[in-house]
Amino acid sequence: MHEAVVKARARGRRVGVVPTMGALHEGHLSLVRASVERCDETVVTIFVNPTQFGPGEDLAKYPRTFDEDIARVEAAGATMVFAPSNEEMYPSGASTFVEPPSVAIPLEGKFRPGHLRGVATIVLKLFHAVPADVAIFGRKDYQQFKVIEAMVRDLNVAIELVAGETVRESDGLAMSSRNRYLSSDDRVRALSLSRALSIAHEAYRQGERSTAALEALMSEELRGVDSVDYASVVDADTLQRYDIVPPKAVALIAARVGGARLIDNRTLS
Amino acid sequence: MHEAVVKARARGRRVGVVPTMGALHEGHLSLVRASVERCDETVVTIFVNPTQFGPGEDLAKYPRTFDEDIARVEAAGATMVFAPSNEEMYPSGASTFVEPPSVAIPLEGKFRPGHLRGVATIVLKLFHAVPADVAIFGRKDYQQFKVIEAMVRDLNVAIELVAGETVRESDGLAMSSRNRYLSSDDRVRALSLSRALSIAHEAYRQGERSTAALEALMSEELRGVDSVDYASVVDADTLQRYDIVPPKAVALIAARVGGARLIDNRTLS
Repeated sequence: MHEAVVKARARGRRVGVVPTMGALHEGHLSLVRASVERCDETVVTIFVNPTQFGPGEDLAKYPRTFDEDIARVEAAGATMVFAPSNEEMYPSGASTFVEPPSVAIPLEGKFRPGHLRGVATIVLKLFHAVPADVAIFGRKDYQQFKVIEAMVRDLNVAIELVAGETVRESDGLAMSSRNRYLSSDDRVRALSLSRALSIAHEAYRQGERSTAALEALMSEELRGVDSVDYASVVDADTLQRYDIVPPKAVALIAARVGGARLIDNRTLS
Repeated sequence: MHEAVVKARARGRRVGVVPTMGALHEGHLSLVRASVERCDETVVTIFVNPTQFGPGEDLAKYPRTFDEDIARVEAAGATMVFAPSNEEMYPSGASTFVEPPSVAIPLEGKFRPGHLRGVATIVLKLFHAVPADVAIFGRKDYQQFKVIEAMVRDLNVAIELVAGETVRESDGLAMSSRNRYLSSDDRVRALSLSRALSIAHEAYRQGERSTAALEALMSEELRGVDSVDYASVVDADTLQRYDIVPPKAVALIAARVGGARLIDNRTLS
């Protein structure tokens, strides 16, 4: 993989990489198309990274749809797929990790300890294995994107990052590989995430600048889910929370609906 | 720097990098010559890395001899020098670090907490800034070399590592930028490190396989130094200590003599 990318770049071809865990949906494919638009070669990586799952999380049951994934990324214009084994990515004895930047501490950092450390580590490893010009990640995983952005800057990684917009179902549900865990009842209840974000966005647009007030509106709308890890309004760059909404702010939600832990977010300003 | 290296490699030139903290001596220059022998271009990096110094260590007084360094590496055949500022390497807010591999836990890991984390982080950053074919480090920093070796393997860094032999003064003292801290009395006492290693090596050669016995011989020889952090015999790969000396073993010493903390090591088998 490494040699193929180095050779393509030496021939002057611009290479994009789209890291994924497979179980691909339209959100992923929009990232592939964003790479195809910008680059001569697009590599899709497919690897369900064990180090970003905590004990008791859904590593074992995470959906694996490799054959369909390959057909879909090829149809979307990808030219290479990198799908390493666990043993290739984590040979016995591997013990070096990325200690992620401070933007990894709140939100997911609090509710999924170790998750963003696993994400930062595998993403850096993939950047080393696939030394592309540009890497494209979805904005649905907002905090993940900010962590990768800070890591690339802090560790002087020579890659350009692009954030792809969240793709939604027609009723507003953010696309996610985990949506397939939802029963039809869950599926209806899951709509409250995107609705809560819309309500916060509208209140912000009408002048509400109290973080607590916006969060209360979201919590109210989220009454029907099984549990809420967070429904927060924070600074869009640092992910720090302030009593008064900062000039660049984002609302983020993580909530459990049936067997799925769903996340979504929306920029307010 | 990055562009110059990428362009050189695209023209088919093999690039070597020799990371240093400056204050260059014959040990460093032997690494530069080892790179010049193997490569078409040799980059020497000069950066006194603050994150590998602990509180109360010698960061402020660490010797800086930039103009002489430049003249020496040029004479040794280096073609490029990379000497970034602190602000370039650690811009305000930088908070991503490398969590070093398990081989960083004993020895220096115990006596200089955070040191090898700082080393692993700056070395990875330098590898990103100077994406060479091969990197050359001195074997005097034995544990550092093993940490970098494990990091490169664990994080899939595409670089070849070469260990250069320790260069010694005619009386056996391992060359070190910190030797200039030694008074003439200290300079004599400092010889006990290389002598202790020779004594352990000779006892091993004559059949001694008790770790405790070899360590006692070294401690005996080290009576004249001001303090000993460790004088240990460990497995050459894992740096774990066993009661019976393993088939591939190394003896390592860290000791204070006057104002200097000196390290040295010798492979036993």
